[in-house]
Amino acid sequence: MPSRTTVGVVGGGPAGLLLARLLHQAGIDCVVLESRDRGYVEQRQRAGILEQGTVDALRACGAAERLDAEGLVHDGIELRWNRRGHRIDFPSLTGGRRVRVYAQTELVKDLIALRLADGAPLLFDARVTAVTGADTDRPVVHYTHQGAERSLHCDFVAGCDGFHGVVRTAIPAEELRTFERVYPYSWFGVLADVPPSCDELIYAHSPRGFALHSMRSPAVSRLYLQVPNGTDPAAWTDGQIWDELEARFAVDGGWRLARGPITQRAVLPLRSAVTEPMRWGRVLLAGDAAHIVPPTGAKGLNLAASDAVVLARALAQWAATGTTAALDAYSDARLQAVWRAEHFSWFMTTTLHSAPGQSPFDTRLQLSQLDRIAASPHAAAELAENYAGLPLV
Amino acid sequence: MPSRTTVGVVGGGPAGLLLARLLHQAGIDCVVLESRDRGYVEQRQRAGILEQGTVDALRACGAAERLDAEGLVHDGIELRWNRRGHRIDFPSLTGGRRVRVYAQTELVKDLIALRLADGAPLLFDARVTAVTGADTDRPVVHYTHQGAERSLHCDFVAGCDGFHGVVRTAIPAEELRTFERVYPYSWFGVLADVPPSCDELIYAHSPRGFALHSMRSPAVSRLYLQVPNGTDPAAWTDGQIWDELEARFAVDGGWRLARGPITQRAVLPLRSAVTEPMRWGRVLLAGDAAHIVPPTGAKGLNLAASDAVVLARALAQWAATGTTAALDAYSDARLQAVWRAEHFSWFMTTTLHSAPGQSPFDTRLQLSQLDRIAASPHAAAELAENYAGLPLV
Repeated sequence: MPSRTTVGVVGGGPAGLLLARLLHQAGIDCVVLESRDRGYVEQRQRAGILEQGTVDALRACGAAERLDAEGLVHDGIELRWNRRGHRIDFPSLTGGRRVRVYAQTELVKDLIALRLADGAPLLFDARVTAVTGADTDRPVVHYTHQGAERSLHCDFVAGCDGFHGVVRTAIPAEELRTFERVYPYSWFGVLADVPPSCDELIYAHSPRGFALHSMRSPAVSRLYLQVPNGTDPAAWTDGQIWDELEARFAVDGGWRLARGPITQRAVLPLRSAVTEPMRWGRVLLAGDAAHIVPPTGAKGLNLAASDAVVLARALAQWAATGTTAALDAYSDARLQAVWRAEHFSWFMTTTLHSAPGQSPFDTRLQLSQLDRIAASPHAAAELAENYAGLPLV
Repeated sequence: MPSRTTVGVVGGGPAGLLLARLLHQAGIDCVVLESRDRGYVEQRQRAGILEQGTVDALRACGAAERLDAEGLVHDGIELRWNRRGHRIDFPSLTGGRRVRVYAQTELVKDLIALRLADGAPLLFDARVTAVTGADTDRPVVHYTHQGAERSLHCDFVAGCDGFHGVVRTAIPAEELRTFERVYPYSWFGVLADVPPSCDELIYAHSPRGFALHSMRSPAVSRLYLQVPNGTDPAAWTDGQIWDELEARFAVDGGWRLARGPITQRAVLPLRSAVTEPMRWGRVLLAGDAAHIVPPTGAKGLNLAASDAVVLARALAQWAATGTTAALDAYSDARLQAVWRAEHFSWFMTTTLHSAPGQSPFDTRLQLSQLDRIAASPHAAAELAENYAGLPLV
């Protein structure tokens, strides 16, 4: 593994792997350091909705072959409340935008395979311990691999190592500002070996709490229930999970939820966080390293991809011309989009979930908002544009 | 004063007076009982923004002569945040709708004058003590006037007597459900003898809290500051009020706030409340008797006027045909609109005010929402449609 590169990419999730792919195609060398092993990275369950812009970016860099073959095109979502359903049609409301259902695990596998096929540096089990010299022209990534301590000298370091990653600690604490919000409920997510009971995702508001019907493939359903924070996923039987899902998705006139073997279960807390700025000196943050969104708006993976696209463009400008104009603009441009996504995720979350102790007044406000989305083309378009994805700034 | 009428109208504010005007024009006799004296009713400061639909209704019943002559046509509002202003243009966003600035006090004067000119019954200083027989065909309004106890026998009783009025107590408590929300801040409102410093209302989000620049006429400004609940209006000097207003309205590039003598000052709490249902037996609620909104969306007076219009139509249907279909539909139809207005008022209030202890994260969400309104035609139209007024259901 080289000890010198142009861009040290810390973290082998979607942000880091896509950034590496884009840099490779731009002729900029980089090294990707991932602390976990390949099997772990390729299996961890995360998001599954790709915006139009994310798909476009993956296609443009030749990483969409399997996505185009296997991803499911979705032209809308269904909202349910008051035992009724209402469909939001993306193309007609957004001028033709749509989303794809394609699991993050699959995208990560594709990007890893491409990088290895290119023979480009990607190191698993490489645990970064520190990044030094962020305010110099030659930052250094210190890491351990196979018991040895190593150094990677870079022109730039991209922190794609998640919100608890090491790269952000290279920025002096007094230069960073972190904004956070913790939601008073979690998602109980299950994978089930059963064909989805719907063609598109269903977001359900119910007096029993929120539920989401998603899918990973034509044979695998992904389902979520709002549960109290601290819920033990082992405390529910499969039957209880299906019963509760059925109760929350219930509509007048009937609707069948197909049941099947539950193969994975986990409880995920919902929180928001944003770090400002996303660049300091020669260190740049991308993806979860800079921001976390609750999953309700399906924004996390797409924000990470957009960060990678904008950052790769900025680094390509620097490599080609020596100017840092685009790098200088990176943080402000992305934070504008990040806050939009944070707001939309907050809107979707608080409109659809029941907070503990929520007043009947606030429940009526939620229902009025949902009624308005059903009645007003502008309100529906505002949701559709944010969900299907806004153009890159 | 008669002891028998078709509709007993309790309350001589905008809802009761407009209802009486509409019933009179439909040939339905009614008696209006107002607990205060005429001078009080004509002077109490309230709202000042009339939606297009309210203006249309006043014109249709011949009550808009002075409004058309003296009311100020407003085609938009200005939002301010981050030391920048952004105008929302109503006609272009709503298909031609606009609002009028005309003080509620003036509207009340006009409606009282019309009723007295018609020689139709309107009694001041008439304190209603009880309404009985709400579930019979002959409800009775009991009231005192000039020291005597009197009774008014009616076919229907319209409760237009405010949220703490007597009429709603005629409905068994177990049949009523009240939804409430109290906001953790108040408005410090002042009237000043100075021409407004703007042609249209300015709603300002600032780190110091919300401010609103409104007006009552070309010579009288109406200004509001967000203040903590419990603020004593006497504790501020005029200079402090103007300084604080100036700081909250400040924009880059400069803007002058003209100062003048402050002639009235008051602190108003902000709260929301809705009573369901709005009809029980022969008792019907309209205006503040059924719902309160915070003033931020300028909905209170307009909801009252819409209630009166829909109720008058329903009573006219009953008088003409004996059918109660429209009366039976009154509560559900109005509550749909009431909750829309409650939601919009909540949206405007929580987007523009700083709650005590509000987190920096939540402030960023507010700013992202405001940025979105400036960037997105759909988001702007959603605000404009709600503000300029939705068509009557």
